[in-house]
Amino acid sequence: MIKIGIVGGTGYTGVELLRLLAQHPKASVRAITSRKDAGTKVADLFSSLRGKYDLAFADPADVDLASCDVVFFATPHGVAMAQARELTSAGVKIIDLAADFRLQDATVFEKWYGMPHACPDLLAEAAYGLPELRRDAVRKARIVGNPGCYPTTIQLGFVPLLEAGIVDTAHLIADCKSGVSGAGRKAEMGLMFSEASDNFRAYAVKGHRHLPETLEQLAPHSATPVNMVFTPHLVPMIRGMHSTLYARLTRTDVDLQALFEKRYAGEPFVDVMPPGSMPDTRSVRASNMLRIAVHRPGNGDLVTVLVVQDNLVKGAAGQAIQNMNLMFGLAETAGLTALPVLP
Amino acid sequence: MIKIGIVGGTGYTGVELLRLLAQHPKASVRAITSRKDAGTKVADLFSSLRGKYDLAFADPADVDLASCDVVFFATPHGVAMAQARELTSAGVKIIDLAADFRLQDATVFEKWYGMPHACPDLLAEAAYGLPELRRDAVRKARIVGNPGCYPTTIQLGFVPLLEAGIVDTAHLIADCKSGVSGAGRKAEMGLMFSEASDNFRAYAVKGHRHLPETLEQLAPHSATPVNMVFTPHLVPMIRGMHSTLYARLTRTDVDLQALFEKRYAGEPFVDVMPPGSMPDTRSVRASNMLRIAVHRPGNGDLVTVLVVQDNLVKGAAGQAIQNMNLMFGLAETAGLTALPVLP
Amino acid sequence: MIKIGIVGGTGYTGVELLRLLAQHPKASVRAITSRKDAGTKVADLFSSLRGKYDLAFADPADVDLASCDVVFFATPHGVAMAQARELTSAGVKIIDLAADFRLQDATVFEKWYGMPHACPDLLAEAAYGLPELRRDAVRKARIVGNPGCYPTTIQLGFVPLLEAGIVDTAHLIADCKSGVSGAGRKAEMGLMFSEASDNFRAYAVKGHRHLPETLEQLAPHSATPVNMVFTPHLVPMIRGMHSTLYARLTRTDVDLQALFEKRYAGEPFVDVMPPGSMPDTRSVRASNMLRIAVHRPGNGDLVTVLVVQDNLVKGAAGQAIQNMNLMFGLAETAGLTALPVLP
Amino acid sequence: MIKIGIVGGTGYTGVELLRLLAQHPKASVRAITSRKDAGTKVADLFSSLRGKYDLAFADPADVDLASCDVVFFATPHGVAMAQARELTSAGVKIIDLAADFRLQDATVFEKWYGMPHACPDLLAEAAYGLPELRRDAVRKARIVGNPGCYPTTIQLGFVPLLEAGIVDTAHLIADCKSGVSGAGRKAEMGLMFSEASDNFRAYAVKGHRHLPETLEQLAPHSATPVNMVFTPHLVPMIRGMHSTLYARLTRTDVDLQALFEKRYAGEPFVDVMPPGSMPDTRSVRASNMLRIAVHRPGNGDLVTVLVVQDNLVKGAAGQAIQNMNLMFGLAETAGLTALPVLP
Repeated sequence: MIKIGIVGGTGYTGVELLRLLAQHPKASVRAITSRKDAGTKVADLFSSLRGKYDLAFADPADVDLASCDVVFFATPHGVAMAQARELTSAGVKIIDLAADFRLQDATVFEKWYGMPHACPDLLAEAAYGLPELRRDAVRKARIVGNPGCYPTTIQLGFVPLLEAGIVDTAHLIADCKSGVSGAGRKAEMGLMFSEASDNFRAYAVKGHRHLPETLEQLAPHSATPVNMVFTPHLVPMIRGMHSTLYARLTRTDVDLQALFEKRYAGEPFVDVMPPGSMPDTRSVRASNMLRIAVHRPGNGDLVTVLVVQDNLVKGAAGQAIQNMNLMFGLAETAGLTALPVLP
Repeated sequence: MIKIGIVGGTGYTGVELLRLLAQHPKASVRAITSRKDAGTKVADLFSSLRGKYDLAFADPADVDLASCDVVFFATPHGVAMAQARELTSAGVKIIDLAADFRLQDATVFEKWYGMPHACPDLLAEAAYGLPELRRDAVRKARIVGNPGCYPTTIQLGFVPLLEAGIVDTAHLIADCKSGVSGAGRKAEMGLMFSEASDNFRAYAVKGHRHLPETLEQLAPHSATPVNMVFTPHLVPMIRGMHSTLYARLTRTDVDLQALFEKRYAGEPFVDVMPPGSMPDTRSVRASNMLRIAVHRPGNGDLVTVLVVQDNLVKGAAGQAIQNMNLMFGLAETAGLTALPVLP
Repeated sequence: MIKIGIVGGTGYTGVELLRLLAQHPKASVRAITSRKDAGTKVADLFSSLRGKYDLAFADPADVDLASCDVVFFATPHGVAMAQARELTSAGVKIIDLAADFRLQDATVFEKWYGMPHACPDLLAEAAYGLPELRRDAVRKARIVGNPGCYPTTIQLGFVPLLEAGIVDTAHLIADCKSGVSGAGRKAEMGLMFSEASDNFRAYAVKGHRHLPETLEQLAPHSATPVNMVFTPHLVPMIRGMHSTLYARLTRTDVDLQALFEKRYAGEPFVDVMPPGSMPDTRSVRASNMLRIAVHRPGNGDLVTVLVVQDNLVKGAAGQAIQNMNLMFGLAETAGLTALPVLP
Repeated sequence: MIKIGIVGGTGYTGVELLRLLAQHPKASVRAITSRKDAGTKVADLFSSLRGKYDLAFADPADVDLASCDVVFFATPHGVAMAQARELTSAGVKIIDLAADFRLQDATVFEKWYGMPHACPDLLAEAAYGLPELRRDAVRKARIVGNPGCYPTTIQLGFVPLLEAGIVDTAHLIADCKSGVSGAGRKAEMGLMFSEASDNFRAYAVKGHRHLPETLEQLAPHSATPVNMVFTPHLVPMIRGMHSTLYARLTRTDVDLQALFEKRYAGEPFVDVMPPGSMPDTRSVRASNMLRIAVHRPGNGDLVTVLVVQDNLVKGAAGQAIQNMNLMFGLAETAGLTALPVLP
């Protein structure tokens, strides 16, 4: 059994890790920390866990994380990098669900997250945890930066087109829609039921932190410079993310359906839908599956890619476990085979 | 492996059976029928099942259900009883998720469902599939009538009080609230998003088919005659059921918390919450767990019992599988251990 | 035109007052205060008001409320009573949407709200602002305590039965369901979209502040002592309140439908629905109408009353304006005639 | 008073017309027809109308529409054109909320709606009812084709850019999101609460009927040919539409904010928001207002325009009344001044 520690387990990615790990055949959660809720049983905070977890949140100071095989950081940005050196020195692997190890350029990190990076050398060795694009690196990594939710969908949607070199990469458009849980478990006015329900709006149109991450990761897949307009929107639903991607085709003689099917052949968690499909977010609810459909409306020179995932699973906790499986030589799908919950 | 047939698999209980059985260690779904959708792959109707089920809906005429070990009927009322004799004669066990084998009195069935009962003799031998109250009968049964969703919560909430003989059983009140999926997968005006969303209403105040079923089942647990007012309401949520039960105490010197805890000690799917709890429906979402809290507001002579379940799982498909497990001597929890999905 | 001041206008009752008063033929909002948002234009906080209100929130210290004809307090409990003496001395009428002038017994107020009452003498002269029951008192009042949202539905639902003396008044049951906006515009975890959506739960089962208020107001309508169990629930919808009321009939020979129709004949904002009706909350959305249906299920000795209202209108801001109309001798319906928004 | 007839009043645009016209100072609804619901009182079908409308649905055969001043058609496509000649001959003005008089090219109509046009000559004289772009034509028209909901937002969002000649008009992108009521009041599986709630999806990616209408109307505003990719999506909310529009700038030295503000200066129902704004759909809920914000993300050469409206008001019934006001020489805002309902 893999001994697991979770730092900062009171948010949605934390409780989702607990839910998924409870069904994992090789996982044993040994410790979960929370400064604020130390002493509270996890099942008292999240009654869905009653009967399955007897564990209580522990004060970080009281926990010997060095005895774990792997530590997940489900914390705000900045926490994982502060503990990464000590843990990796002790032989503990790290999977950070925040942004500390996502951006490969420390100056870009500092610009967008407003803090210096605590360990640029570890950043350099960290793997970006999108298995479909970085599987080998993840397998060998001591530290994995788990991707942002939006970037996962945008990269998997655009990469086949970029690798084929058939789109204008300087004017990509990502019109993305996320369920409210993507904003985390925090009491902010705009996320209240009476504010977010029966409502739809864009946000962060000027610039969202997932933009530099996406651009950085897309670049090596493209022979030409990549630029993008990214518009995130808030959907009145709890879970689910739908990215509608647009690009101008520089060639229209390529079979797009075949291109995508070939690129993701054999991928256990990427489902290229049949031609004409319009996937709905609930088709992946509570599962680690991501579904893609590719369209060329009116047979014109614009391609439209539709991508759906559960932002808390493939967009966060599920992908983190997928990475863990790779890092420990387990079956990549271990603990992640439950079907989506529909309706 | 248990060979399973599902008759009428295009509704919510059908797709929920498929979801749950996919995770069951001993289940093998061999056939699923639908007259209307014969030939369609189940994964084409429910994209959540893509990659896991290659099965297509079959015309009932083309399927040899007699070769199954058990057949689930996820059909409208009246279908199971028409096929019950033939199947049981062939040694096939039956679990009906409709009402054909719920009401033990055939005349009551005819009154509320507007059709004569096709096989009153089989009705007499059928077990009412609420394991917490009828476990032994279910174990031995060839035919199980799976309870209605509301009756499951009402019975489990009232039975400890009735058995203890401490309430006025002639004036029970069940104020129940159900998510919209409880009405089934059918295109009715009142169930449309634009009608049911951001709205709340009672329905069937004059009389709901779950009332006679509940009264019939409660009677043997009470030394005095049982009568009840039952008010179902429609909640703008997909899954989930919350029953708020009221009874007048004839004795106020009984420790209600201890009474409930003792009654359900050891039950894997009934969670008696700590004193003062107010369970929310999402704490059981997509799981087979049912949670109960008992209150005596203002220390008066009225007892309030709060019961939550997922109407499609413990209220339908999950309970049906729990019954199957008992009928085949499996662990009662087999295939039903996944944690609730929260948020 | 009536010169109006609003104290504390950044909550839902504040913005609802602004919305309704904009359509009122005799209302002129002169000032609106908010300590926290002083200087911000109301239309910058609530973009729905753009183009209609040029007003900015003012610091309470900078506003001459004494020059208003009436001041609405849309504030937390305790604010109105601190300013009541000064304003009434200056000839300003007061309508408090919080609890300061609801409870007539100051000791009950202190017990439930945890603070001493600042002006028990003014409390004694204040009118309880439920026009259908206290119209004459409201007309003459300098100070009106606007009722709580739940108490409005419970009182209007039970009063005909109590006045007729045909129910067991010691065991009333009010099973009430409210949209989330009833909790106010505040960033609390339990009110977040991801927590409250697709979920249903009871709260405050042990005791809710609206219970003593309701009991105090019901008492004068009953020849026998009144006691009640009150269970509030949170519904995943923005607006709307549905109260399901139960009482044991001591006489079953009374025509309940006629009783209710007669009691509310001529009331512009109480709609007694035809026999067999089950009103939905959206039928009153955004309007000041309250609808009632009365049932006797199974012709038994329990009566069920269904009451719906918009918690922010008849349950708060609309009723406050109805009271203002009475206090200033206007048509009671002035500014309140807009139809409900459906769907 | 203007004598008004409504043909086909049982859908959402019908009930919305009734709601809005009840507040209109010059409107008198004389007749409303429905073949299916003839004889039913409108207030029995829509309880929100109780007390305000005593009218019953009439069989079309029994109604003398020729005595009306104007007839609104809130019917499926094809109904208005069948009655247009007779009514206009009788001096009755017509406002069609379906598509019969939207497309100016009868062959395009036949292609997209699958039926021949019944009166191409009347089509030629009909005005396209988007007042902000066709005010003079509407004023003089006997027949108005009320625009589709999506086209209203797309046209008002793109026109300033097209008229200024500063975008690549051959590759416009309209990523649009609509609340479920936009699909009408009909019992279809995909529109059921349990299917559409907590879900997000694109639809009609291959081609939506609002595309040819939009292209036809945009053309005269552009010196270069217009082409567009249009992706509609279904949002789990009742009302509201959010269009996110993208275009490549051919010049980046134009002050976009000033361009939009100037274009819509004085428009009572178009609100150009301040720079940096991200309007939410609820900011126009139940009102005839449409709000626009224009962005140039990263100061690049792509412009993003955000447009919100209530699909049932500015996108349908409200705009129809705005057209009626113009056709009858009334104040354009008559009956349309109610503020949005928020929250």
